[in-house]
Amino acid sequence: MNLRSGRLKGKMSDEAASFTSSLEFDKRIFEADIKLNTAHTTMLAKKGIIPSEIADKILKALNELKNEGIGALDLDPSVEDIHMAVENYVTSKIGEVAGFMHTAKSRNDQVATDLRLVLKEEIKGIGFNILKFIEEILDMASEHKETIFVGYTHLQHAQPTTFAHYLLAYANALRRDYERLMDAYKRVDMNPLGSAALTTTSFPIDREMTTELLGFSRIMENSIDGVSSRDFIAETVFSLSMLASTMSKICEELILWSTFEFGVVEISYAYSSTSSIMPQKKNPDVAEIARGKSAILTGELMTILTILKALPYSYNRDLQEITPHLWNSVDNAKEMMNMVRGMLTTIEINKERTAELAKSNFATATELADILVREKNMPFRTAHKIVGRMVTEALENKVSLDDIDSNFLDNVAHEVMGKSLDLNDELIRKALDPYENVKARTVIGGSSPEAVEKVIVSLRTFLNEEI
Amino acid sequence: MNLRSGRLKGKMSDEAASFTSSLEFDKRIFEADIKLNTAHTTMLAKKGIIPSEIADKILKALNELKNEGIGALDLDPSVEDIHMAVENYVTSKIGEVAGFMHTAKSRNDQVATDLRLVLKEEIKGIGFNILKFIEEILDMASEHKETIFVGYTHLQHAQPTTFAHYLLAYANALRRDYERLMDAYKRVDMNPLGSAALTTTSFPIDREMTTELLGFSRIMENSIDGVSSRDFIAETVFSLSMLASTMSKICEELILWSTFEFGVVEISYAYSSTSSIMPQKKNPDVAEIARGKSAILTGELMTILTILKALPYSYNRDLQEITPHLWNSVDNAKEMMNMVRGMLTTIEINKERTAELAKSNFATATELADILVREKNMPFRTAHKIVGRMVTEALENKVSLDDIDSNFLDNVAHEVMGKSLDLNDELIRKALDPYENVKARTVIGGSSPEAVEKVIVSLRTFLNEEI
Amino acid sequence: MNLRSGRLKGKMSDEAASFTSSLEFDKRIFEADIKLNTAHTTMLAKKGIIPSEIADKILKALNELKNEGIGALDLDPSVEDIHMAVENYVTSKIGEVAGFMHTAKSRNDQVATDLRLVLKEEIKGIGFNILKFIEEILDMASEHKETIFVGYTHLQHAQPTTFAHYLLAYANALRRDYERLMDAYKRVDMNPLGSAALTTTSFPIDREMTTELLGFSRIMENSIDGVSSRDFIAETVFSLSMLASTMSKICEELILWSTFEFGVVEISYAYSSTSSIMPQKKNPDVAEIARGKSAILTGELMTILTILKALPYSYNRDLQEITPHLWNSVDNAKEMMNMVRGMLTTIEINKERTAELAKSNFATATELADILVREKNMPFRTAHKIVGRMVTEALENKVSLDDIDSNFLDNVAHEVMGKSLDLNDELIRKALDPYENVKARTVIGGSSPEAVEKVIVSLRTFLNEEI
Amino acid sequence: MNLRSGRLKGKMSDEAASFTSSLEFDKRIFEADIKLNTAHTTMLAKKGIIPSEIADKILKALNELKNEGIGALDLDPSVEDIHMAVENYVTSKIGEVAGFMHTAKSRNDQVATDLRLVLKEEIKGIGFNILKFIEEILDMASEHKETIFVGYTHLQHAQPTTFAHYLLAYANALRRDYERLMDAYKRVDMNPLGSAALTTTSFPIDREMTTELLGFSRIMENSIDGVSSRDFIAETVFSLSMLASTMSKICEELILWSTFEFGVVEISYAYSSTSSIMPQKKNPDVAEIARGKSAILTGELMTILTILKALPYSYNRDLQEITPHLWNSVDNAKEMMNMVRGMLTTIEINKERTAELAKSNFATATELADILVREKNMPFRTAHKIVGRMVTEALENKVSLDDIDSNFLDNVAHEVMGKSLDLNDELIRKALDPYENVKARTVIGGSSPEAVEKVIVSLRTFLNEEI
Repeated sequence: MNLRSGRLKGKMSDEAASFTSSLEFDKRIFEADIKLNTAHTTMLAKKGIIPSEIADKILKALNELKNEGIGALDLDPSVEDIHMAVENYVTSKIGEVAGFMHTAKSRNDQVATDLRLVLKEEIKGIGFNILKFIEEILDMASEHKETIFVGYTHLQHAQPTTFAHYLLAYANALRRDYERLMDAYKRVDMNPLGSAALTTTSFPIDREMTTELLGFSRIMENSIDGVSSRDFIAETVFSLSMLASTMSKICEELILWSTFEFGVVEISYAYSSTSSIMPQKKNPDVAEIARGKSAILTGELMTILTILKALPYSYNRDLQEITPHLWNSVDNAKEMMNMVRGMLTTIEINKERTAELAKSNFATATELADILVREKNMPFRTAHKIVGRMVTEALENKVSLDDIDSNFLDNVAHEVMGKSLDLNDELIRKALDPYENVKARTVIGGSSPEAVEKVIVSLRTFLNEEI
Repeated sequence: MNLRSGRLKGKMSDEAASFTSSLEFDKRIFEADIKLNTAHTTMLAKKGIIPSEIADKILKALNELKNEGIGALDLDPSVEDIHMAVENYVTSKIGEVAGFMHTAKSRNDQVATDLRLVLKEEIKGIGFNILKFIEEILDMASEHKETIFVGYTHLQHAQPTTFAHYLLAYANALRRDYERLMDAYKRVDMNPLGSAALTTTSFPIDREMTTELLGFSRIMENSIDGVSSRDFIAETVFSLSMLASTMSKICEELILWSTFEFGVVEISYAYSSTSSIMPQKKNPDVAEIARGKSAILTGELMTILTILKALPYSYNRDLQEITPHLWNSVDNAKEMMNMVRGMLTTIEINKERTAELAKSNFATATELADILVREKNMPFRTAHKIVGRMVTEALENKVSLDDIDSNFLDNVAHEVMGKSLDLNDELIRKALDPYENVKARTVIGGSSPEAVEKVIVSLRTFLNEEI
Repeated sequence: MNLRSGRLKGKMSDEAASFTSSLEFDKRIFEADIKLNTAHTTMLAKKGIIPSEIADKILKALNELKNEGIGALDLDPSVEDIHMAVENYVTSKIGEVAGFMHTAKSRNDQVATDLRLVLKEEIKGIGFNILKFIEEILDMASEHKETIFVGYTHLQHAQPTTFAHYLLAYANALRRDYERLMDAYKRVDMNPLGSAALTTTSFPIDREMTTELLGFSRIMENSIDGVSSRDFIAETVFSLSMLASTMSKICEELILWSTFEFGVVEISYAYSSTSSIMPQKKNPDVAEIARGKSAILTGELMTILTILKALPYSYNRDLQEITPHLWNSVDNAKEMMNMVRGMLTTIEINKERTAELAKSNFATATELADILVREKNMPFRTAHKIVGRMVTEALENKVSLDDIDSNFLDNVAHEVMGKSLDLNDELIRKALDPYENVKARTVIGGSSPEAVEKVIVSLRTFLNEEI
Repeated sequence: MNLRSGRLKGKMSDEAASFTSSLEFDKRIFEADIKLNTAHTTMLAKKGIIPSEIADKILKALNELKNEGIGALDLDPSVEDIHMAVENYVTSKIGEVAGFMHTAKSRNDQVATDLRLVLKEEIKGIGFNILKFIEEILDMASEHKETIFVGYTHLQHAQPTTFAHYLLAYANALRRDYERLMDAYKRVDMNPLGSAALTTTSFPIDREMTTELLGFSRIMENSIDGVSSRDFIAETVFSLSMLASTMSKICEELILWSTFEFGVVEISYAYSSTSSIMPQKKNPDVAEIARGKSAILTGELMTILTILKALPYSYNRDLQEITPHLWNSVDNAKEMMNMVRGMLTTIEINKERTAELAKSNFATATELADILVREKNMPFRTAHKIVGRMVTEALENKVSLDDIDSNFLDNVAHEVMGKSLDLNDELIRKALDPYENVKARTVIGGSSPEAVEKVIVSLRTFLNEEI
């Protein structure tokens, strides 16, 4: 059946047909399209819009197609799209009456509905994998509640923490990535079917029935909006780009941590490669590729937003160009998360090195200042100044953390404020010890093992509710 | 007070100080910063972390600053940021004890909290304006339920509709823009205060108390995440960019509709300009500028996503560069929506022209095909073919819509399928009449006045629940 | 040959191997890689770095591979990339001595060189097609030097022009697109081969020889830069995105012009489609798809710029992720231009309609104002005011252009400046006649047939120099 | 003078006037606008289009305005733009005859010309600063030709190099950034003046004269193109975004190198800051801010490309929205380069640490493999395998580079290929010594002091030609 035979006298050129064809990425909506046609035909028959016996034939043919799979379709570019290919299949099975299945719908509402049906499944799948990833991170965290680790700001040693505490930053970011995706889902889960070309139809269709049959939560309440809106795609791709952003951070850190210089993490051989020329190399290729691929999501989002900008209502063919970018985003996000998850959960932490680093660059100085405030009732700013000066002195005179005592501190205090502090040496030692630092941070969200455990429990509760 | 005097011996160069200063856009968080310091100091005193009498002095000074306004601050670039400026002010009032207010917090958690406090207000304000805009669109729609309008696909006449039906596409898009923004709000409304620099603090602070005092709904459960995450900004800017996308569509249509060729809409003088050289011009400048500005949101989002990509934990100064793009996005979105709202709600529709267009290019052809299906029990595809051929014949022979009758149709039918249709002339007339077309579309989301009224009622219910 | 057997004990997981494999898009550099290996091996032998008899064997095997084509390669994902696949092929033919071909080079310089070799050809091909496109536009312009057309600003009628004049705007934009691409070419045409992994090699290779053998114009003078820089890709993709921007403008105009309302252009059936539901439709699908696809170039550029941002030297695997976006950009730009060129050069202009539009909305008002300046020695601003008021009067009283005479004008003049103008009726008629307007614009770049002809000649000269 | 008084009866609303006003960023073209008006008026008089005595008055007033500066203008939003403000000034000085200066031009060609005039100067300034930056890098390189440094791939130790060699990667990237910007300049340096509103004018203006007076190299040969094209802006911003990309790489490396873990670089105090809470911190804030700001250029480019997409000819007000993004890009690029230049050229290299790193992780392994090829006539692949295995053995048994001798190597060789290598211990030592490695890389672009010196000379020659 050639749609053009009625209105257009000439044929589209082969190149133009190939240029405008969506068949390549339509394959993804093949099953959804059968599901849609099944629901629509069922409704048409129930409402008496088409004869039941014809509906039965159509439904039978659709079911056969479902069993045979997409291979049964003729996907020649001249067919234009999957909707025509499906209809052609049904026509080949039951003849011209197949045309009844296209009553009261259009490819405009059909493609919008198909995309939403498939995307709902994809989002649920990705969401589930995010939850699984969080779960594995929590398992790791449980094992590293006492693994001392350096916390950085500006990529400079800031304060000691534990690797568990660090991992929970990932877990919380992933939780928001999940929640954001689920919020996007709500706007995917809306049914445009029945919008037909753009103004619904004069046939007395029952949109509530197809909404139920297809498992949508809401009906789209305006048909022009129904066929034109692709904000659900932009929002999904944005949500995936935020997930990719989280992945890119994890990759960046694994790359840094596995450098010779940091040396705190060993990435598994399963995620590394060597060099064709430098025999000594062990490279974090998976982390680099994933970091690079995270940019794809940004680019795809840009493409989609640019297509949408200033596009008048209702359906314009430009909208078709959005679809491949959606699927490319979905596939990249899925694969990237899968790889990062495998890579992160198989790293080895070099605990000797992390402990060494935590002691080597005065990351505990804040605690010493805090103790001055507490013990000496000194304003924080003054304490900050004394300790800052002390660090400079120590660095310049190559005095190590372990050698700092009350005397050393008092020399600086004299300089800054003209008098001694007379702080107990034991207090100083505790203040400057990384593990004591960590243990002292018991407030909500803090690095102490108990505080970390509380968050693990809280996140496990969240997981249990969602899975 | 110069923070550097402790640790750094040299001074930052003036150029570097100006390059890294955030003071310019910090002004926006001035009031939030006072609010935060007030809540934090109150909590510190209640928990016995700092002496009450000092807390009282600090609170008094903060209150004075609030009353005096930002003008009271010394905002020299050497001051670095608003947090230091506020602390300096308090120091100038009560002396060195002001330093106590910085106990158990850091600029890292402070700026994150301030941004969230201000952004919550901005989002609520924009959300309210979206609701108001929807309300005004509903008022317009109520008046245009019978104003015939052409619905386009591919910018070609597709089917007749009403202007009210068209307006509800805008209203529904805006509703999703609102819902999306409110979902983003949930992730803005989380309290990072107490994260301190990145690992909380060993002072026994009460994060639940400050969360309540500041009106946040959730506490951020990991302090590294607390100071580092800016996904709430990316998500807000994305949500605004979708709102801008909706605005850009409206602008595009107003520009098209007010061309000489379309001539269906007259934009108010208040939103038009003329030319410095062409005395006859009346230009839709506001719509053009708003359409152009919609791209700003996309660009700002790209800037933000690019800054975030592969940035390791925890706080890095790059994050500071995100803030001005947030405020620029907020301001542009607000102003753009304000202008588009004023412009849209003051247009005049040329009803004669819309009615003329609706009749002039066979936009009612689908209905005729549908009637063939219904009356002649013909598969839709066959009906589509006959009507398509009929349109071509009519165009080529310059036969107008009003002159098409049973005879004309039968001539085509003979050609296509070798027999007549014998359709009643009155049925043909009704099928081809735009208003009859519109009236017949009574299903949910359709263009008939009743269907439109139902959606207006549904949206008014939504508005009442939200406002 | 498995590179890993030396340094890495474990195997990369299959999923990770597939995730990091570049084989899919490496196919594109297959021939370039043979060319490179041929040149490199030739040089190695000439410089006595490897034995000539081994070099001969390698060259023979490479030649066989060239003849057999890519099908002869084992492209299993475990092979990593095309460079290893080629080496494996040679090894399968001549044994372990194949390993000599990898002397003094690395995949790092190899892939950079291959990409440049292929891209040079692609750019030349696209450049040639731009020139051909310009040539066809000039042919069209030659036929439309007297086809009256409306020139728009703000999408409102501005001044009459001719379609030829309009087309030359396209031609000049395309000329810059061409020049820009050729400028980008200069930075593609630089040879990194010999950079090896990143610091060149201690073998006494002759980089000038391989530069000549491979046909590069310049050698990259720093080896770290040689393996790391991908700015040549970003610049090429940017240049293509500007070409796409030009295409998107043409598409937008064809879509507008072929609306029922404008009705000035008929797009060929070969580039149009109809609707599955609305039998009367003839849709400009090719123009819409091309307009949509133009956004792909922007998105790909975004992806590339994001990958490059803050990536430290030298080679990082992220760079591999840039390549598919280059080829996707190249392919889309080529195909899009091909389609737009076919579509534009086969449109039909409705000359009656263009002439009618040119007269219908006072687009000639500027000329009347200019004549007041010339004849009455009046400042332009005063003339502008009089004519502006005259247009308003005419529109409100439905006075058409042809009915405006000296009397009508004087009534307005009296109102504005209290006296008559006494302008000759014939002067007024000429001023208000679109064709007279066009003829009068004889300055460089103007719309008169002579001025247009001069530019056609100038552009033909440019084409002759470049082709 | 109110342009609207002729055609438009109502006033634009104040909000709309402010929304559409360009005055804020028009200030930047104030001087260019005077220059343009001066050239245009001079030409009009010379061609007899306006009376000389009036031209003289206009020129005198323009000259006065130039001397008084922009402060002399009334820049109330109702004035719309700088062009009207200038004309109003002249009118206030010489009365209504000021209107003659607007003969035969329009704000459309005027603003396009002004932007190009200013941008030419900006590009020249930035270009000059790039050259100066390269010069300073060459000076640094001259001092570091023997400073051993680790070269990285995948952020893993790859091969030893020198800091001078490393710096030349920056220099060569900057050279291309310069060349690209100069190529963009060619397309900025085109004169649209005389295009008037969009079709030139019927006045016999001399476009060649104004082109010469304004110092443009080419005339824009089509007036529609002249007023509409903004590709020169997109291209300039793209070129600046590539410069920003180079800056972002330098910043990333300085941030990495100045971590405690790398410890190879000390950034000057002038470009560092400390923490408000952690007294021990010294943070690379300037590098972080600059890295963050590099994203601004990407975002601005995206905004501009999005505005341009599918915008029909000729002038549309959207184009005005491009301008602020141009200036923002220019200012950010300038400031960022200025800061990075200051920061890079004042770093201190910790030579002990760089030498230590170069020896500590088998970065010289490639050289050992190369020597096996040379001395033992072994295929590179076999050598690669032996050395790879040797590195693994050494790492596992904690054998340091200095302890590897012929025996150690032969043990591995036996394992891999069943026989000894009997390599001279001295050869092994030389192969594994970083400095010997560096000295051996004498080919073009290599790391040896001589090779580096040659490139320094080559770049100095380039600088001399350009400055």
